[in-house]
Amino acid sequence: MTAARRDDGGERYAARLAVARGAMREAGVAAMLIGPGADLRWLTGYGPLPLERLTLLVLPADGPITLIAPRLEAAGAEASPAVRHGGVVVATWEETADPYAAVARALPSGRSAGAPDRYLVSPTLWALHMLRLQAALPGATWALATTALRAARMVKDAEEIQLLREAAHAADAVVLAIAGGRLVDRTEADVAHEVRLRLVEAGHDEAAFWIVGSGPNSAEPHHEPGDRRIGPGEPIVLDIGGIRRGYCSDTTRTIWVTGGDPAFGPDSTFAGLYGVLQGAHGAAVAAVRPGVPAEAVDGAAREPITVAGYGAQFIHRTGHGIGLEGHEEPYLVAGNAEPLAVGHAFSIEPGIYLEGRYGARIEDIVVCSPDGADVLDTTPRDLYVVSGL
Amino acid sequence: MTAARRDDGGERYAARLAVARGAMREAGVAAMLIGPGADLRWLTGYGPLPLERLTLLVLPADGPITLIAPRLEAAGAEASPAVRHGGVVVATWEETADPYAAVARALPSGRSAGAPDRYLVSPTLWALHMLRLQAALPGATWALATTALRAARMVKDAEEIQLLREAAHAADAVVLAIAGGRLVDRTEADVAHEVRLRLVEAGHDEAAFWIVGSGPNSAEPHHEPGDRRIGPGEPIVLDIGGIRRGYCSDTTRTIWVTGGDPAFGPDSTFAGLYGVLQGAHGAAVAAVRPGVPAEAVDGAAREPITVAGYGAQFIHRTGHGIGLEGHEEPYLVAGNAEPLAVGHAFSIEPGIYLEGRYGARIEDIVVCSPDGADVLDTTPRDLYVVSGL
Repeated sequence: MTAARRDDGGERYAARLAVARGAMREAGVAAMLIGPGADLRWLTGYGPLPLERLTLLVLPADGPITLIAPRLEAAGAEASPAVRHGGVVVATWEETADPYAAVARALPSGRSAGAPDRYLVSPTLWALHMLRLQAALPGATWALATTALRAARMVKDAEEIQLLREAAHAADAVVLAIAGGRLVDRTEADVAHEVRLRLVEAGHDEAAFWIVGSGPNSAEPHHEPGDRRIGPGEPIVLDIGGIRRGYCSDTTRTIWVTGGDPAFGPDSTFAGLYGVLQGAHGAAVAAVRPGVPAEAVDGAAREPITVAGYGAQFIHRTGHGIGLEGHEEPYLVAGNAEPLAVGHAFSIEPGIYLEGRYGARIEDIVVCSPDGADVLDTTPRDLYVVSGL
Repeated sequence: MTAARRDDGGERYAARLAVARGAMREAGVAAMLIGPGADLRWLTGYGPLPLERLTLLVLPADGPITLIAPRLEAAGAEASPAVRHGGVVVATWEETADPYAAVARALPSGRSAGAPDRYLVSPTLWALHMLRLQAALPGATWALATTALRAARMVKDAEEIQLLREAAHAADAVVLAIAGGRLVDRTEADVAHEVRLRLVEAGHDEAAFWIVGSGPNSAEPHHEPGDRRIGPGEPIVLDIGGIRRGYCSDTTRTIWVTGGDPAFGPDSTFAGLYGVLQGAHGAAVAAVRPGVPAEAVDGAAREPITVAGYGAQFIHRTGHGIGLEGHEEPYLVAGNAEPLAVGHAFSIEPGIYLEGRYGARIEDIVVCSPDGADVLDTTPRDLYVVSGL
């Protein structure tokens, strides 16, 4: 007789914890110390806010696994999938206690004699906690948990890909709404405010970023939207994303605002530049397949841009991995020989930026499938020439 | 003749950088290394997102000040108030370069002979960067920049207090809208979604948190809103906040939902508990004045709760500082003898939590003025007994 059992994902987290332990044993690591963030969510399904109060998964290579949490967050920690599944025990600390001493206590005793213990920490753990852990565990050596988790975290399963797809579609709806709405005479900051609202309305749990770069600001890849008013005859680089059920969206489209006057359409330089960019984006997407080095996709985007004379104006890597984090491995950048594998998810986002004048970028989220790129974003990749009225 | 000069706050940041340097010289510190976050915004007015790409203010006790930034964020770094004012120079790094080596180069040469160099880092700097900085600057000792900046950062000037007040009022408007709207039969997650939208609509640049704890979940101080449906005859702890022009809001009110039926009003235990809580909140507010130790305000809130027999159910500190960060110094907690000073801003948020049954909390943001507490939140502190229909 099989009892009906609610699937809370506990099996998934047990498997991931086992993967982490296997990697640690292979690398001779004593324990992982994982604070709030993507690694903790990936390992346990638990997603508290990072705070000055310590929350830390103490995951030794062998022995009991402890989730240290402040007492006022005990219920949330107890309700996390990995704890409910069993195998992870919550240890709470009171408001005036020392949680770093509790970390030392949660580690197995009688660790390696002679050689210093080696610990792996989550990459977004705050220095506040890092320095106190280093003080509580003197003489240890430290490295990033990424070294042990990267291979497994990069490969998204079917459910994760579906969540990335749904997040992408939510962001796509916002792109279409902004490109189809009024833009002329509005400030970048005002459009960014609308983006934030729409990202949440479209189903994101949080808006994460809202780049609106108009006119010369379109030449700044990470422009912070400000008081500049959008006018006819200029481009807008719109790069937006949010978090939906834990997974991130991130898409960029470039809009050209005419104010309804054909005389204010894109000039020939911009039109040419955009054509080059579309070609580069398409070449990078076409280069995606299992076994291809990440840097080869970067190269595929860079080559046509360089041939067109804009190589020095493509001032960033072609893309970054995406999943529980907006930026994660694999990075599509020169020097990264990591072979792409089925389930890797990443952005492809070449850009060309003529400093002080204007720029353009096209960004899609892509999953490496056995047959090549599965492009999650579905909005047109053309220049959006709109009246903006 | 005085030329009209745009006030971009440059003088303010120059003064703060000077304060930091003074504190470093006094403490024998070689340099501060400040990543994205509140310390960077406080020192320079620059607020980039924390990313895997290094942005770092290298602030030596003496000598040139360098803001290291990825090239694709150069324009934003150059436009930051401290850089425009002069005295801080931007050094950009290319996508495939090593920014940690650039940090070492930006430090003055010929530092302390013999004794190891001592560096202060911003508390929210990621371990990713921290470990690489430790590798690039071997043999150094490390501590938190908070030690040198806390005294100055705790004291808010008139403009900061005004910004905190405006943020508080924006959050207050959301509290009133939620308490006055439909609640019965909605899930906590649905109400939290509305909170996020309303926080932004009310003028926040970002929603930061949205605790909606209904029924037994109201006994979890940091409850993550979920699929539980709100029903008549139960309380909701609503603890919400966002960021507006860099400054944070954070307020909590407790709502009791009747469904329009007086038979589903608060029971006598809850009514009594809430009365004790209101008394504790009022006592803590009344205890605020310059020179009073932070822990005395905690004690003032705790005493009436303990007398009423709920001491063990008030499981967290009474409050935390607030400003550019949602949680910062001073913390109102047993053991913190820090005397309050004019301009200190913090939450006062006692709570009583009967595990598995229900709980309540009242939270205001308060500024210490020469005459005592200046309470920024303006919504009633009574229990909000509403139909929720």
